[in-house]
Amino acid sequence: MATSTHADTFSSPSMVRSACRTGRHTGHTAAMAPGYAQANLVVLPQELAYDFLVFCHRNPKPCPLLDVTDIGRAEPVQTAPGADLRTDLPGYRVYRNGELADERTDITELWDHSMAGFLLGCSFTFEQALLDAGIPMRHHDAGSVVSMYRTSIPCTPAGRFHGEMVVSLRMIPADRVIRSVEVTARYPEVHGAPIHIGDPAAIGISDLGQPDYGDPPISEPGDVPVFWACGVTPQAIAMQSRPELMITHAPGSMFVTDVPINQLSSR
Amino acid sequence: MATSTHADTFSSPSMVRSACRTGRHTGHTAAMAPGYAQANLVVLPQELAYDFLVFCHRNPKPCPLLDVTDIGRAEPVQTAPGADLRTDLPGYRVYRNGELADERTDITELWDHSMAGFLLGCSFTFEQALLDAGIPMRHHDAGSVVSMYRTSIPCTPAGRFHGEMVVSLRMIPADRVIRSVEVTARYPEVHGAPIHIGDPAAIGISDLGQPDYGDPPISEPGDVPVFWACGVTPQAIAMQSRPELMITHAPGSMFVTDVPINQLSSR
Repeated sequence: MATSTHADTFSSPSMVRSACRTGRHTGHTAAMAPGYAQANLVVLPQELAYDFLVFCHRNPKPCPLLDVTDIGRAEPVQTAPGADLRTDLPGYRVYRNGELADERTDITELWDHSMAGFLLGCSFTFEQALLDAGIPMRHHDAGSVVSMYRTSIPCTPAGRFHGEMVVSLRMIPADRVIRSVEVTARYPEVHGAPIHIGDPAAIGISDLGQPDYGDPPISEPGDVPVFWACGVTPQAIAMQSRPELMITHAPGSMFVTDVPINQLSSR
Repeated sequence: MATSTHADTFSSPSMVRSACRTGRHTGHTAAMAPGYAQANLVVLPQELAYDFLVFCHRNPKPCPLLDVTDIGRAEPVQTAPGADLRTDLPGYRVYRNGELADERTDITELWDHSMAGFLLGCSFTFEQALLDAGIPMRHHDAGSVVSMYRTSIPCTPAGRFHGEMVVSLRMIPADRVIRSVEVTARYPEVHGAPIHIGDPAAIGISDLGQPDYGDPPISEPGDVPVFWACGVTPQAIAMQSRPELMITHAPGSMFVTDVPINQLSSR
């Protein structure tokens, strides 16, 4: 009989999802099921679902839609057939009228026939591609969370949803900046190429040392700030519209899809 | 004072749309506003709009979504700001319960606060790219309509929408087939690369001589049949679900967007 190790348990997407479903895993998903795309989750009731889907179509850089469920269905049929969005993430956050109301490890009780689930590409995916290209991820080395900022860049509004883009920052050695554009441009379904390089003030960020989400950035001499559209954007936007009920993944506790990262490459 | 010629009248997208709006033009849009993308139109009431949008996301090859309106709005804000989908096409078809009920040149009376409009990429766009690459379009030379066929290729269902893909056929000289893949692969928003090359029976087509839509194909010795996903698919699928009301463009009477074809190229 084979011995079960941590590595065994979390080596495939279905193993990670099963561990979440049975309550054996409730933490983050970083480095789990390596080679497979992970996704941000947004759950909304039917009356907001069309507007949100249109918002994603109009703002593909912050909201790269990997999968979307039929109304009332919790199965992401394109990215993980057979999985269940109500149980297969390690943790969820429940927002009511735009305020955090609850944290859970299972949302089955909250899911009714009117709910729709949206899976949005996550930068965990392109960070691996950057590392593979020899580009350092300063926040990985420091064991900290990537720095994220609200900006002055307007998203294209859709129905009830409107507001500004949230970006993530990576400090990149000056001689690797162009390579970082080339590498991430190949992955349009996980935010794609950066949206800004250099001066933070040009996109409405006054102090890099005080991110709106995550930890302060760490840099080495000669690093250049490079900003990517961030999957926190749709949550921030949805919060502003103060929906009666919205559910998301807990920070760092992503949905692990069956989609190999290589399949997300556009060339 | 400048003399107005036919070429002047239809040289820009806004001129074509204005001629449609004022009733000065009611025919097809082939070769009008050269260099700009044209689009298929589908209009559906709110209760089907989410399902249809999900269907487009799951089936991007037959249903490449260029633009979508907010519920009740007739302005395609991304592809032609200021335009009006109710008046700016030369002709419309009105379907009730899946049957053709009316043809019109203006749908303002039928449009209420619950309608949503979808613009889907059209193969007029990639045909220009093929011609530019020196690949002949047999149906252009013959002055006939491209041949289209129902296939056995299932689309991924979404809500009430399900069914098989419709494809368009172009007979391509054997030594240009690979080039035709390369050229159209650059345009994912107008159906992209072919979905099948060669044997029609492999995708459920029994007789090339009897297309389901358009004219029979014309070929030269050594031509190979090459099939692309077709924008007629969403209409065929929507018809099968027999919606109470659905409006589309009249055949060949497309919506002319402000989007330069070059901007649709992915590389």
